[in-house]
Amino acid sequence: MSDTFHLPQRILMGPGPSDVPPRVLAAMAQPTIGHLDPAFMLLMNGICDQLRAVFCTSNQLTLPMSGTGSAGMETLFANLVEPGDKALICVNGVFGARMADVAERCGAEVHRIETPWGRIFPQEEIVAAIDRVRPAVVAIVHAETSTGAHQPIDGLGAAVRERGALLLVDCVTSLGGAPVEVDAWQIDAAYSGTQKCLSCPPGLSPVTLSPRAVERLERRKTKVQSWYLDLAMIRKYWGAERVYHHTAPINMLYGLHEALRAVLEEGLTARWKRHRAMHNLLRAGLAELGIRYVSQEGHHLPMLNAVAIPKGLEDATARRRLLDDYGIEIGAGLGDFKGNAWRIGLMGHSATRRNVTLLLSALKEMLGR
Amino acid sequence: MSDTFHLPQRILMGPGPSDVPPRVLAAMAQPTIGHLDPAFMLLMNGICDQLRAVFCTSNQLTLPMSGTGSAGMETLFANLVEPGDKALICVNGVFGARMADVAERCGAEVHRIETPWGRIFPQEEIVAAIDRVRPAVVAIVHAETSTGAHQPIDGLGAAVRERGALLLVDCVTSLGGAPVEVDAWQIDAAYSGTQKCLSCPPGLSPVTLSPRAVERLERRKTKVQSWYLDLAMIRKYWGAERVYHHTAPINMLYGLHEALRAVLEEGLTARWKRHRAMHNLLRAGLAELGIRYVSQEGHHLPMLNAVAIPKGLEDATARRRLLDDYGIEIGAGLGDFKGNAWRIGLMGHSATRRNVTLLLSALKEMLGR
Repeated sequence: MSDTFHLPQRILMGPGPSDVPPRVLAAMAQPTIGHLDPAFMLLMNGICDQLRAVFCTSNQLTLPMSGTGSAGMETLFANLVEPGDKALICVNGVFGARMADVAERCGAEVHRIETPWGRIFPQEEIVAAIDRVRPAVVAIVHAETSTGAHQPIDGLGAAVRERGALLLVDCVTSLGGAPVEVDAWQIDAAYSGTQKCLSCPPGLSPVTLSPRAVERLERRKTKVQSWYLDLAMIRKYWGAERVYHHTAPINMLYGLHEALRAVLEEGLTARWKRHRAMHNLLRAGLAELGIRYVSQEGHHLPMLNAVAIPKGLEDATARRRLLDDYGIEIGAGLGDFKGNAWRIGLMGHSATRRNVTLLLSALKEMLGR
Repeated sequence: MSDTFHLPQRILMGPGPSDVPPRVLAAMAQPTIGHLDPAFMLLMNGICDQLRAVFCTSNQLTLPMSGTGSAGMETLFANLVEPGDKALICVNGVFGARMADVAERCGAEVHRIETPWGRIFPQEEIVAAIDRVRPAVVAIVHAETSTGAHQPIDGLGAAVRERGALLLVDCVTSLGGAPVEVDAWQIDAAYSGTQKCLSCPPGLSPVTLSPRAVERLERRKTKVQSWYLDLAMIRKYWGAERVYHHTAPINMLYGLHEALRAVLEEGLTARWKRHRAMHNLLRAGLAELGIRYVSQEGHHLPMLNAVAIPKGLEDATARRRLLDDYGIEIGAGLGDFKGNAWRIGLMGHSATRRNVTLLLSALKEMLGR
């Protein structure tokens, strides 16, 4: 038999999960009730309403999928792509590459455009590729968690729509920490995760689909290849019919409800501003220590700071020292950036002056300044 | 903005979720740490070890999938079936039918055998079908949650193995409440859920694969169609390599670790015996009230009692009264049994003399006895 586990106290400043506020943890610890209980149905409505507010959308089909962010990614491709459909995927990091892999497994004819890691795609490049490929869907990552690049989306939606395609956007890391304006930006489908700027534990993936995307769903000629992620059935559970599909992750949904309440109590604009302010504070401090960003100047994500590993520190040893001596988790580099970069998260509840100051001081000590 | 939600206090005696012990809820409320934190890695090992004990297996590939029981079902078919493979599916309720649907979506050539709802399959019928179809996989539900039928599995594994197929078993409702002896019964792959007899909230799906099933995995010629459920990648995160795949549902895993501890502290044999004893108590009481089972005599599941709705009570009204006046949730009939049957759960923490006595007394009052 396993022993009781004793968890260390951490400050989560990696690429996610972020620190979870005690009120969210307390919500999750409330007694489980049934997934068809009338009281739970009310909670579900509250979650969808709040998700619409956070996504800045009036999309009816807005709900949390019962899996992590990658399940949300797969949900969009499995539902919105039919075998043989052309998908244009913008790849400039791990998550763009993952989208291409997922789309291929869903039977799409995948066309990639690439730009170096850390850089963003100029809009005209994407539009030129759409004109060349004539895809059914265009997919792009808003906040590339592997590189810290902040892709501008505003304006792209109109260009995609004019060309008859759907725009799919990965907002896993940006939602709740920087503007994600689904309706204003004419995004057709977006997915996110709960463990980044929403500061809820991982396990759920909020998704939203525009009426155009829903129309595509309803016009499908083939069955969605994933039963678990089939939105035609899932929307009947989350909608007025309440038809049983699978058992919802009840306590996780308690947590999400409370996390969204916290986000909206702070206010989206104030929350975006806080993330930006903490990012500026961190960036100024890192500059003083001679630590530079690896993402494109002018397009740094506020909540995910990808920086070169400072000279004089060894990657794994330094991260382990941060963890053991200061209780701070930061992220290692991923993919092309493995061994070359660190990823410092300032997400949701973790994006505080206290945390920034502590991390900068710890780095200063470790660098012997 | 949504208000704080106020949850009613329930006694969960439906088809799942079951009541969750306070120690499990408390474990889930511990602060979130990183999914690559050394402390979390230890916890993961503890979970896998305990799952092996609960599944009565030494299968190396034993882990919780990041989704509910249906995700576990899809995991097995997506990974163990390649397009065109023949799958023999035994259908005698909602979950057998779901397996057929899932297998088809995974590209299998599905062959169904059917028996009326509430009945079990005699082993010779299954074996005859295997000899006729020559399938690559045979799939069957051990505890059919929609009908209360308890399918004998012991002996089937050897017959399937002799014929070169893999045996896939749905143990969602049985695991932790009745014997599920993966190794002794020569089961090649099984999946379960956390919200039934393990008494952890829903959100995770324990799966286990035999070395024969792993060999099948490794011999695949095609990519698994689901990225999210691809065991070739997921086992690298849960194994010694610890390669990042998706962010694990951390707090849910705290809960599962503690729930498994509770199961093993009680002891599997004692737990099976308790479920059987509470079932006998309930059955005797129901008989006194003239309430009869709809599942096959001699093959009632201890943890899921499917009974005819007593004369004099209207289905929805009576269930609502149980909920409002007594705080007891029982389950409605599903599929063929909708409107004709109730499903009374005695799962995990809910399987107590107190609950059985209360439910029987409530029914007695409602029937005016």
